[in-house]
Amino acid sequence: MSPLHGADVAVSLAAWLDAVRRAGGLQPPGTEVIGLDRALGRVTAEPIRASRSTPAFDAAAMDGYAVTAASTAGAPVVLPEGAFRHVDTGDRLPADTDAVARREDVVVDGGLRLARPVPPYANVRQVGEDVAAGDLLFAAGRCLRPPDLAVLASVGESTASVRRRPHVVIVPSGDELVPLGTLPRDGQIVDTNSLMLAAMVEEAGGVATRAPIVADDPGLLAEALATAAAEADLVLLLSGSAGGAGDHAVSVMERLGHVVVQGVAVKPGHPVVLAHRGPVPVIGVPGYPVSAALAFELFGVPLLVELGGRMVAPRPRVRATAAVELRSTPASDEWIRLRLARLGSGLVATPLRRGAGVLSSLARADGLTCVPIGSALVAEGEEIRVELLRPLAEVERSLVVSGSTDPLLDELATRFELLADCDGSANGAASLVAGRCHLALVAMEDVPPAAAVISTWERTLGLVVAPGDPRAIGGVEGLRRREVRLVNRQQGSASRRLLDELLAVRSIDPDAVTGYHREARSHAAAVAAVAAGVADCAIGSLSACSGQPVELIPLATQTLVLVAAAGLGDDARLTGLRAVLGKGSPPPPVLG
Amino acid sequence: MSPLHGADVAVSLAAWLDAVRRAGGLQPPGTEVIGLDRALGRVTAEPIRASRSTPAFDAAAMDGYAVTAASTAGAPVVLPEGAFRHVDTGDRLPADTDAVARREDVVVDGGLRLARPVPPYANVRQVGEDVAAGDLLFAAGRCLRPPDLAVLASVGESTASVRRRPHVVIVPSGDELVPLGTLPRDGQIVDTNSLMLAAMVEEAGGVATRAPIVADDPGLLAEALATAAAEADLVLLLSGSAGGAGDHAVSVMERLGHVVVQGVAVKPGHPVVLAHRGPVPVIGVPGYPVSAALAFELFGVPLLVELGGRMVAPRPRVRATAAVELRSTPASDEWIRLRLARLGSGLVATPLRRGAGVLSSLARADGLTCVPIGSALVAEGEEIRVELLRPLAEVERSLVVSGSTDPLLDELATRFELLADCDGSANGAASLVAGRCHLALVAMEDVPPAAAVISTWERTLGLVVAPGDPRAIGGVEGLRRREVRLVNRQQGSASRRLLDELLAVRSIDPDAVTGYHREARSHAAAVAAVAAGVADCAIGSLSACSGQPVELIPLATQTLVLVAAAGLGDDARLTGLRAVLGKGSPPPPVLG
Repeated sequence: MSPLHGADVAVSLAAWLDAVRRAGGLQPPGTEVIGLDRALGRVTAEPIRASRSTPAFDAAAMDGYAVTAASTAGAPVVLPEGAFRHVDTGDRLPADTDAVARREDVVVDGGLRLARPVPPYANVRQVGEDVAAGDLLFAAGRCLRPPDLAVLASVGESTASVRRRPHVVIVPSGDELVPLGTLPRDGQIVDTNSLMLAAMVEEAGGVATRAPIVADDPGLLAEALATAAAEADLVLLLSGSAGGAGDHAVSVMERLGHVVVQGVAVKPGHPVVLAHRGPVPVIGVPGYPVSAALAFELFGVPLLVELGGRMVAPRPRVRATAAVELRSTPASDEWIRLRLARLGSGLVATPLRRGAGVLSSLARADGLTCVPIGSALVAEGEEIRVELLRPLAEVERSLVVSGSTDPLLDELATRFELLADCDGSANGAASLVAGRCHLALVAMEDVPPAAAVISTWERTLGLVVAPGDPRAIGGVEGLRRREVRLVNRQQGSASRRLLDELLAVRSIDPDAVTGYHREARSHAAAVAAVAAGVADCAIGSLSACSGQPVELIPLATQTLVLVAAAGLGDDARLTGLRAVLGKGSPPPPVLG
Repeated sequence: MSPLHGADVAVSLAAWLDAVRRAGGLQPPGTEVIGLDRALGRVTAEPIRASRSTPAFDAAAMDGYAVTAASTAGAPVVLPEGAFRHVDTGDRLPADTDAVARREDVVVDGGLRLARPVPPYANVRQVGEDVAAGDLLFAAGRCLRPPDLAVLASVGESTASVRRRPHVVIVPSGDELVPLGTLPRDGQIVDTNSLMLAAMVEEAGGVATRAPIVADDPGLLAEALATAAAEADLVLLLSGSAGGAGDHAVSVMERLGHVVVQGVAVKPGHPVVLAHRGPVPVIGVPGYPVSAALAFELFGVPLLVELGGRMVAPRPRVRATAAVELRSTPASDEWIRLRLARLGSGLVATPLRRGAGVLSSLARADGLTCVPIGSALVAEGEEIRVELLRPLAEVERSLVVSGSTDPLLDELATRFELLADCDGSANGAASLVAGRCHLALVAMEDVPPAAAVISTWERTLGLVVAPGDPRAIGGVEGLRRREVRLVNRQQGSASRRLLDELLAVRSIDPDAVTGYHREARSHAAAVAAVAAGVADCAIGSLSACSGQPVELIPLATQTLVLVAAAGLGDDARLTGLRAVLGKGSPPPPVLG
């Protein structure tokens, strides 16, 4: 199977591994001897041969009577006392017997009554039948699974010689980084990459150490890199900044070691730096989380495999149809996070937001595809190869809902396998018609003709303001004041449409409203902008204000309709949803 | 996707779960709060909503200068000092600015020189762009992956509320069982099942405790079961005997609790017992290792999922062609362990030995297929569905070799991805012709006409005897003595053919040779029989005697030929092998 990534990634990886090798690195990993009860998932360091046979003797394979096969040749016969011996399964076959008559096939009344002859070695597990002494059990490099442990135990082992886990030291750097659990102040970022990368190292069979955050100072960085390289099999030097490794990081890598590759033709992740300090490989990991994850996956994981880590099983791949055109730059591989939906017999793939900083898109993605270097476009409807991030069965169980965002969807998602991928009412209706989603939550006027209505309910829309409306905005009229900063919603959303109507009625020029062109992607994001004080008001819903430090100036009531794709029919996945919502019935109280 | 197993398994599982539920069991699992750095692979206990937004403020998405977009509308312009501010990526956008001009797009010389206007919110990460406060991050039941941990950390969490791992207590029982690391005496078996099942529990997200071995005594068993049930979420009562749960185990389960199902129509594993003590489910696990593994997989894993364990990803499935007819009993599902080989564009599946006691076959299997209840036959060449036990990429890289067994193959397997699946020279040649393997090691006279010769070498065959030949067998003539017990090899093997020739030359009647019909499946197994003293001699090879407490009386020299399937051509997988062996060249010294 050809790799999904393009040439430049492969070339960069090869050049780096080669340079590390020439510097004396990538030696066969050390070994350690550990108890079998801790050896699950560990990798054998050397070929393991059986030191003894199992069974170690000829053993009864059934409960019954050990006999000499020849003595039963003339059956029906009755063997006299002394010519047979009771045996339980697993018992050693008594000397001078060579077969076992099963308990259920004989009658014992003084002698042993047999209706049929017993062939030689019938119901006998012969010595070495499972494993013979000297047999090769496992080659070096075997990732030990549960039955492997049992096989080793069965031939008398209680330990295994396994490869030492590669030790990865993670050095986060950057003045703006603050440790996990700290409330970031202005311009600060929580160091989430160390946590994510440590977990990825663990999945790849390595052991990660997270070093303290280092300020972006050449002296301190050099000291941290030297300390890490002295004890690590691989150093990850994390840049806090969103760009690449900070300028200092690169110059420090150059001074203390050798930079082999600076920048790779892959998006996200292109600012990655591949270096080494003596025999110890170093990766300068970009700061944006999605870039960091991809850079580690493309370069860190293969290196860990070389270092004796666990061979990470390649992700299962499926074919899917691109729901929309996927544009990318031909100058690099581009990895795109996708939402998958089973619609009819096939899978439909819709891209999630691409920004390298959009960490949540990595958590929300069902799969990844790569538009390789040299390609710029995947046409709508084109078949693409997708690497699965979730089990296919799970993907296939899920319903994808598009359209308006509403806390109701979150509420439903806690009870059903429902994935919200919302982009406003009009876009949701279009997605439903185009077969990119199963359900859409849309305004009444956007309901597509053939769609099946699952439920309808009303919601209150209005202006979200700070508690007590301190800027005295009061209502739509307040938007005439230039100092009042609005947050709008994206085009095609029901909220924006309402605002446009209210402005038109009052003959307010939208372009004269401060922040009219600032678009939040959801009710929650609009509320967050007001709560954070970067805007004075937002167009939003009452339910989105719940629990947040804002309040609503009500402006209108709107009817939302949850509709299912016409082609979905009575798909079993809708049953539970229909039971809770009921077509046309009012929404349950908790959703009110 | 329909399950591969038949109705009776599903019915039994449902009846058992239902009974446990009615007894008050299978309640929602307890929760625990753990640090994010230990939460990889754990399962969320409740829906998690974002308690704050990320970004928490409008932030620069690039290094550059914060400006007011409106002030750049007439570009080219020069903004005066004070009308712009330097920002680094991640910095909070200064009040009264709404866009960032990228460093590379401007010239700073007193003022800020801009060639083009900067649109509002260009190069700004808006508050809540990634996650907005109140957003549903994860539903309950989410198995946390690396980016999930980062998402939680990004909104200020440093812990997660996860489901407590289900606690499984494993109680091995049986007089014949001895603990791991003990040399078993007559009739004793090492308790390998506890080790294997504990590892399987771990893989399914549970925590296993292995209790000490209990003798098969009703009082002791009852005490052990009661103790285990008092602290466990699931008890596995392991039978040491090969049959089902020992008689005592079943009666104890009946006395202390309730037996719901005794015996399920599945092979291996049919003697499984599904019971409960009050609300605590109990599985009576059969003693044969392959039965134990399957019983746990069919009943234990689904129960752990119900109890809040990790959802185990279903194994990937592939389609393969049955290399031979697969017969099974129509009275039950039958699970068959398979060796897979990529030959041409497809996968060919060959069954491994089926005995429930053949633990090594479970370790050696590439996949499993189920011939469901009601079916008795899969025809040769029929397409079957196979659940993969190894990654497909690994399977596809491997070469399957059939034919004679020889230590050379083991030696090669330590260097190449080579899987030996040997059944004698004649069978190997037939397998190669039938397309069931890539390579075959055969006697010269068995070389198929179209096969490509990779290498040839000689080996010495003879009679394997105890050191010093204490029974004074001396040679083939010694086999005339009835007290001399032989171990033969299977029909079609080169060794057996040699013996037959030697007996024929001497006019010795094979049926008159004691043990002529006892067949060992490999040279190593034949040697093991002599070493264990259950036979006095065996027909075998010199190299198989190496390191074993036996010696060889040489009888003949035989030429072996390693041949590749004609259709394999210059398959890349052969390259390394050819380089080491070289067509026609002598084998390397280590193989001598």
